[in-house]
Amino acid sequence: MALIVQKYGGTSVGSVERIKHVAERVAKFKMLGHQVVVVVSAMSGETNRLIDLAKKIQKDPDPREMDVLISTGEQVTIALLTMALKDLGLKARSYTGGQVRILTDSAHTKARILGIDEDNIRADLNAGKVIVVAGFQGVDEAGNITTLGRGGSDTTGVALAAALKADECQIYTDVDGVYTTDPRIVPEARRLKTITFEEMLEMASLGSKVLQIRSVEFAGKYKVKLRVLSSFQEEGEGTLITFEEENNMEQAIISGIAFNRDEAKITVLGVPDTPGVAYQILGPVADTNIDVDMIIQNTGANNTTDFTFTVHRNEYARAMQLLNGMQPQIKAREIKGDDKIAKVSIVGVGMRSHVGIASTMFKTLAEEGINIQMISTSEIKISVVIDEKYLELAVRVLHKAFNLENAG
Amino acid sequence: MALIVQKYGGTSVGSVERIKHVAERVAKFKMLGHQVVVVVSAMSGETNRLIDLAKKIQKDPDPREMDVLISTGEQVTIALLTMALKDLGLKARSYTGGQVRILTDSAHTKARILGIDEDNIRADLNAGKVIVVAGFQGVDEAGNITTLGRGGSDTTGVALAAALKADECQIYTDVDGVYTTDPRIVPEARRLKTITFEEMLEMASLGSKVLQIRSVEFAGKYKVKLRVLSSFQEEGEGTLITFEEENNMEQAIISGIAFNRDEAKITVLGVPDTPGVAYQILGPVADTNIDVDMIIQNTGANNTTDFTFTVHRNEYARAMQLLNGMQPQIKAREIKGDDKIAKVSIVGVGMRSHVGIASTMFKTLAEEGINIQMISTSEIKISVVIDEKYLELAVRVLHKAFNLENAG
Repeated sequence: MALIVQKYGGTSVGSVERIKHVAERVAKFKMLGHQVVVVVSAMSGETNRLIDLAKKIQKDPDPREMDVLISTGEQVTIALLTMALKDLGLKARSYTGGQVRILTDSAHTKARILGIDEDNIRADLNAGKVIVVAGFQGVDEAGNITTLGRGGSDTTGVALAAALKADECQIYTDVDGVYTTDPRIVPEARRLKTITFEEMLEMASLGSKVLQIRSVEFAGKYKVKLRVLSSFQEEGEGTLITFEEENNMEQAIISGIAFNRDEAKITVLGVPDTPGVAYQILGPVADTNIDVDMIIQNTGANNTTDFTFTVHRNEYARAMQLLNGMQPQIKAREIKGDDKIAKVSIVGVGMRSHVGIASTMFKTLAEEGINIQMISTSEIKISVVIDEKYLELAVRVLHKAFNLENAG
Repeated sequence: MALIVQKYGGTSVGSVERIKHVAERVAKFKMLGHQVVVVVSAMSGETNRLIDLAKKIQKDPDPREMDVLISTGEQVTIALLTMALKDLGLKARSYTGGQVRILTDSAHTKARILGIDEDNIRADLNAGKVIVVAGFQGVDEAGNITTLGRGGSDTTGVALAAALKADECQIYTDVDGVYTTDPRIVPEARRLKTITFEEMLEMASLGSKVLQIRSVEFAGKYKVKLRVLSSFQEEGEGTLITFEEENNMEQAIISGIAFNRDEAKITVLGVPDTPGVAYQILGPVADTNIDVDMIIQNTGANNTTDFTFTVHRNEYARAMQLLNGMQPQIKAREIKGDDKIAKVSIVGVGMRSHVGIASTMFKTLAEEGINIQMISTSEIKISVVIDEKYLELAVRVLHKAFNLENAG
């Protein structure tokens, strides 16, 4: 008998039929003798509907009241799912974040979990009940309703699993696991049976978007066994996220290939090469709340330097305007921008101990005539920025070059 | 400076525009220097939408989870109204039933209020804030969410007014007060400036439906000054419900004429006139949860008795089926039914001290050739059952006979 925390996202509970389907899946686990805690999101579309209502009333809605408003979305789902479980003859009970007592700080709309009072849940579990908890929400010390920010239901699931010392936290999504890359681009892409926590972090932040980064960090901190599964497939073991590198000779060097086309690049050419230039350029960007991803600086000619960084494509216009306005002040020769770029990354803990990964990557791209515009590396990933039009080609040839379709 | 509790029903907060309108009305009272506590219902249609969802999942939805579900309706409204108030520059704060701590018993979907912890609200009022409370909901001792049953928001309003010792509890509805009768039938019908608590009880239970009976009883018990007003009219002082009979010579003998056509009548003819016959007939009716309104028993011929009672028209078929099945057992000569009846009642505390009211009523109806099928009286009302087709005529001639269009 195991204690399992299952988290179902908005699409998985998006209709009456899907809620019933989730109830049947939970019932199966219960019938196997497991204890089950279910964490659910709001029905898909509901949170956006509520936010739209709020914005019609207040342009910049009050954060405390926003949390009172949007926390109703998950509250609806826990009631409906608990009814569905009872309709199947199971004992079940719903809990709002406040009823569990998921204690958070008071940072409305982006609160952090401080602690979970798991006593009531444990007593109900021992009484044979399925527990249904509203994800995404908590209460602060004064009893105000708080929410954890978008994707916070994953975090609720992991935090509950940690507090209850659950055997596994299963995150049900609309994909059946983490793949070596997007199967829509590479049909040979393969589901990974396991992926390390570090790789998952790189995959998520690179746009794989299967799990919210914060929940993965949380799982890593509390060593929660995390599994990604599909809520639409009956079978399948999904992908397990591990926290200890297994000393496995068979382990693939590269686990997967991530990519995104959400970025745009801005290059500042011919800036005087003096200390503080990076801050001069990026300080004002940060001050206007534009997030910067990659940053590269190269020495140029005549004691000048060239400086390139990427921003989200949605903020490209704003960033270019800002930089053009700063040009005289930072004494740049030229400001250039390009929003037709894509980032491709190879990720794998194996590359730590293997030389030649980078050169294989660069060689593979060169053979296809794909020019590399930027390079950035970390211990377990190498990212390159290329012309957007080569994105699919690059992902396909790299997937083949690293033999990802056969590994595992 | 007064402390005012205002309650707005579902229609009054049925859209973003109406919520903004309510905020403006509240702001007016606040600007006059009053302290204001606002109690709101769910946006019109929302509660039914949620109940429909539940019924698609569980034929007979679990009551505890039903309360978790439908209490979200009011929670959405408090957040939106508080945002609207803040948008007008007011200080405001929302409270769910649990956050106030409106303590109830654990009778889910029809809970009774046991007590209200008004300390936090009072502190916020003293800090200049408008308080927005979710009507209809509370929590039990164990922290389970409860609801008070349909119309429970009125009860929340009155209970808060009692706990806070408010100067007045204003119930905003889609009518601008209590009328001498339905203006759709009698255009000369007149808004009453005041009505006594007892009259209001009779008017409400007779189908005037302006206020929920339970909230009026509650107001009577705690001597809360209750006023019914329109949320759609800018001016108007509505109708004040009083609890002391003012010794006013000018007071009208009759306050109003109520009516309904929701009832059907069943007559059991020629039952042996022995003790226990009423119980023999009505016991099984009660056991099948059919509510009975008027009951009349007359002595008939040959030591038999005739027995007539009224039920809700929706339950007429079921009741007739039941009675027909019982006929041999109760030794009735005949069972007759009629669902084309209407009940008309004259209501007024003044009739206590005036003889001749009943005879005026009967004479007026007789002059129009309207046959009276049943009569029932209480201290402050006289009800008659007539053929449904004469309903409008009866109401009009009685309104005139008691000079209701000129009084007040």
